[in-house]
Amino acid sequence: MLPDILSVRRVTTIGAGPIGGGWAAHFLARGFDVTAYIHADAERPALQAVIDTAWFSLEALGLAPGASRARLTVTTDLARAVRDAQFVQESAPERLAIKQALYAELGELVPGDCVIASSTSGLTMTEIQRDCASAWRTVIGHPFNPPYLLPLVEVVGGAKTAPEAENWAVDFYRHAGKAPLRMLREVPGFVATRLQEALWREALHMVANGEATPEQIDFALMNGPAPRMMVQGQCMAFHVACGEGGMATNLDQFGPALKWPWTRLEAPELTQDLRDRMVEGCNEIAAGRGFEELAALRDREIVAVLAALRAARTD
Amino acid sequence: MLPDILSVRRVTTIGAGPIGGGWAAHFLARGFDVTAYIHADAERPALQAVIDTAWFSLEALGLAPGASRARLTVTTDLARAVRDAQFVQESAPERLAIKQALYAELGELVPGDCVIASSTSGLTMTEIQRDCASAWRTVIGHPFNPPYLLPLVEVVGGAKTAPEAENWAVDFYRHAGKAPLRMLREVPGFVATRLQEALWREALHMVANGEATPEQIDFALMNGPAPRMMVQGQCMAFHVACGEGGMATNLDQFGPALKWPWTRLEAPELTQDLRDRMVEGCNEIAAGRGFEELAALRDREIVAVLAALRAARTD
Repeated sequence: MLPDILSVRRVTTIGAGPIGGGWAAHFLARGFDVTAYIHADAERPALQAVIDTAWFSLEALGLAPGASRARLTVTTDLARAVRDAQFVQESAPERLAIKQALYAELGELVPGDCVIASSTSGLTMTEIQRDCASAWRTVIGHPFNPPYLLPLVEVVGGAKTAPEAENWAVDFYRHAGKAPLRMLREVPGFVATRLQEALWREALHMVANGEATPEQIDFALMNGPAPRMMVQGQCMAFHVACGEGGMATNLDQFGPALKWPWTRLEAPELTQDLRDRMVEGCNEIAAGRGFEELAALRDREIVAVLAALRAARTD
Repeated sequence: MLPDILSVRRVTTIGAGPIGGGWAAHFLARGFDVTAYIHADAERPALQAVIDTAWFSLEALGLAPGASRARLTVTTDLARAVRDAQFVQESAPERLAIKQALYAELGELVPGDCVIASSTSGLTMTEIQRDCASAWRTVIGHPFNPPYLLPLVEVVGGAKTAPEAENWAVDFYRHAGKAPLRMLREVPGFVATRLQEALWREALHMVANGEATPEQIDFALMNGPAPRMMVQGQCMAFHVACGEGGMATNLDQFGPALKWPWTRLEAPELTQDLRDRMVEGCNEIAAGRGFEELAALRDREIVAVLAALRAARTD
């Protein structure tokens, strides 16, 4: 029986790096008591530095009532770190053997009704939870760097994870100010990293082929897709760009362009089924809003972020 | 002999669609006299609608002194449209035969010292300029949609284009408030669209395989990579994420991860040459600024755009 989300006051973070420290800062800023487990006392300054750096930004975005860095406890004693935990966010090194041994321990040490989430980007929970005696409450909660600023957390369980633990993690992350995405199933790289990785590999190909420099790649991304991607994902960007016809027009009219050599990545076969799922997916996001309303919203929000960035750069 | 950038007062746009109309709105907002050529009188309302929609956003971002929609002239007479032009931005339909015939005409009609730029996303200037008698002054100036908001314009010439025409176009776009990127050479899809297309094809694969829905894809992009991509491209994002070691650490330590199945796109071979070009490219962008300075700048700008979007959404 998992606890009421609203009753959670104490979060334990594991790890002193940018991800572990970033999570600690985030939960402190949202008003939780945070116990940070670190592997060795020597890591204390690094952890504190990450938290202090993050705090500038978290203060600027607005702290929860009562939030304070004074509510942080740091310890090298794992049993003590998790003894009273109501949620554990693990950001240990990305080595499978380390994580498996850690989850075997956590499975015994962490109170029975407490969800344990891993920040791993490269491993699956099915692998990590192998030797954990209470694997049902272990999930992945994969953040984006820097974790104290970017809202996304990708949530997915392993083979032994109970659906209610995934549900609880999604609800808790949302309650704690994040934007959780519950994945349909375990996929290497999750959603956002897969998309980013496709882009990154194309970028490496372009540099390798003398088609663009790193500076040109970054310049193109920042001044082209990025401001729009902040307010619309790629699906809705194409849906709205095609006017009233939306994604159906995009795929029916420009489908053949998927065969053009516009990246080294081959497109999937544009089957009727894929077409329909893209169109229905965009209609669901649109939720009855027509082209003009969505385009006006897009423009208003792009104006806001462009103006904010311009102001931040001329301060 | 191309004109002094500062002497340009009159711009001609060709096309009544979202791109042609968007360009007309942009140049009007920057204080130019704009003559818009449209194919038929029936297109007049559509052109005006695009300009009127764009104007809300352009006003919000700030108009140039004297900028006014009253400085727009619309005509279906191509010769008249370009007679006094000091710059031509062509956004005709994306069909090679149409563009080739148009550039044959424009080559005769447009004053000899006037650069002609094409908004094409799918064709090369080498193809388009084939039948143009004054091809040396024809370039591609590829915008991102919506062209009145997103700053990027990718500039590249064809086989017959003179370098000074490319240089002039870059300078003029920058003068006119855009963010021009001069490409090293003609590449299908340019830079930004290639990167976006790699991401888009991976997204289609994920939907086709039941790994994610369009809604999840958009949610992941908007809440994960996008806010950071507004302030750092992917190269600098990885450079700064790796601390003092920067891109060198990223490639030396995580290079093997390029072989992981984190997208359907195969990575290029990570040769010493590619590694060095990535590292040097990032060092050039960093321009002597160290990890801490760059991370602090990143955070400050992410805070600004996140706060602006939150404010726009709660208005």
